[in-house]
Amino acid sequence: MPTNNDIKLIKSLSQKKYRQLERLFVVEGEKSVLEVLEHPKAFSIFLLWCTENFAQKYENLLPTSYEIVSSKLLERVGSFQSNDSAVVVLDIPQDVNCNNTSNFCLFLDRINDPGNLGTLIRLADWYGVDNIFCSEDTVDFYNPKVISATKGSFLRIQPQYGDITAFVKSFEGQVLGAYLEGENIHQLESLKTPLGIVIGNEAAGISPELTALIERKISIPTFGNAESLNAATAAAVILDNCRRLMS
Amino acid sequence: MPTNNDIKLIKSLSQKKYRQLERLFVVEGEKSVLEVLEHPKAFSIFLLWCTENFAQKYENLLPTSYEIVSSKLLERVGSFQSNDSAVVVLDIPQDVNCNNTSNFCLFLDRINDPGNLGTLIRLADWYGVDNIFCSEDTVDFYNPKVISATKGSFLRIQPQYGDITAFVKSFEGQVLGAYLEGENIHQLESLKTPLGIVIGNEAAGISPELTALIERKISIPTFGNAESLNAATAAAVILDNCRRLMS
Repeated sequence: MPTNNDIKLIKSLSQKKYRQLERLFVVEGEKSVLEVLEHPKAFSIFLLWCTENFAQKYENLLPTSYEIVSSKLLERVGSFQSNDSAVVVLDIPQDVNCNNTSNFCLFLDRINDPGNLGTLIRLADWYGVDNIFCSEDTVDFYNPKVISATKGSFLRIQPQYGDITAFVKSFEGQVLGAYLEGENIHQLESLKTPLGIVIGNEAAGISPELTALIERKISIPTFGNAESLNAATAAAVILDNCRRLMS
Repeated sequence: MPTNNDIKLIKSLSQKKYRQLERLFVVEGEKSVLEVLEHPKAFSIFLLWCTENFAQKYENLLPTSYEIVSSKLLERVGSFQSNDSAVVVLDIPQDVNCNNTSNFCLFLDRINDPGNLGTLIRLADWYGVDNIFCSEDTVDFYNPKVISATKGSFLRIQPQYGDITAFVKSFEGQVLGAYLEGENIHQLESLKTPLGIVIGNEAAGISPELTALIERKISIPTFGNAESLNAATAAAVILDNCRRLMS
């Protein structure tokens, strides 16, 4: 039986301070929970609540211990407006430590929006980025909105948080950054690896401290009148061009 | 003085049926309302409500008639959680009629998510797309979430809604569509204009009827493990590659 303490615990995990205290995070909805069950080695399951319907549908994937609950309770404890499938609580692993010898690497400087961070992780997973480094003040990876926006890629890619200036300094390769005025990315010649790309804050762009460390300023050419692109959209275009040009 | 009828009217415009009945739509927030005032020829203003602060800041851009209201009232009538600047109600113009001789054209097949449609319009504005055609069942352009996601591009690009199969049939140029298995877009040679690109529904992709009309199936190469990209992100990568290859 789900206890009141469990309900309180799951609800508390919508806040970063409780996620850090308990070292737990929440994954919601049929598709994402299913991906968790299909990749049992990625994270340890602390608790799984699902509807009768979900349990029947995925019987052979369920762990030994789980609770059948109502969709009403799933909606009450989670952040989804409607959830008639499942909620799973997973252990947050020890801090991720990427190595600085990766071949294709993303540096995220103060990404604020959870949807953008999730989309960036999904993109990194599509374009085969080896490592993601985030500045300390980038939105928390274990935020439920980030997890949801990754569409399952959180199982394969976990970023390392820390001093981004130190990360970039220690990276043994060429570092590119996107600016409104830089080299036209369509006109670049082939790019040598290891390659690192810095994506800046949605409103303020890349910080001056990091700008000083960037070897090449690149930009996405415009053919119309829009002032800018969204950070995740711009990152998609940059990753695509880099992959096309990587030798 | 704002009347109760005005309050009711503005609130009703969050629903498509009332927007169509009244031929009016709502634009909210400092940046978007400011863009409207800076482009007075794009849409006729039916009503403008703003805070004292907004009125002082942009005094020289205000129309002859407007109302000073509290931010509380702006939040009550609009869809933003916080709005301490302005709400403007604009006339919906006569149906847009694009010509079928445009040089670079986007066909949107049942785009459901307002954020995606808004981002697609912003992208079209960045990449200089001449015309956007939407299937009848694509989310309404005048939905406040669409308008907000365009980041001002709604002032420059308005899509035409209608029978998308007929649109594509009458288009006098090459039509490309994105699929999971198609020609690798990085390996395409130059592309001839006029060029049209079909973007399919977020879950179901491009319909079989439209697929029959598509000359070339293209795809975005993957280098990792993610199963798919978001519709707007994929469109960004495709538009970027097309612009790079257009002769």
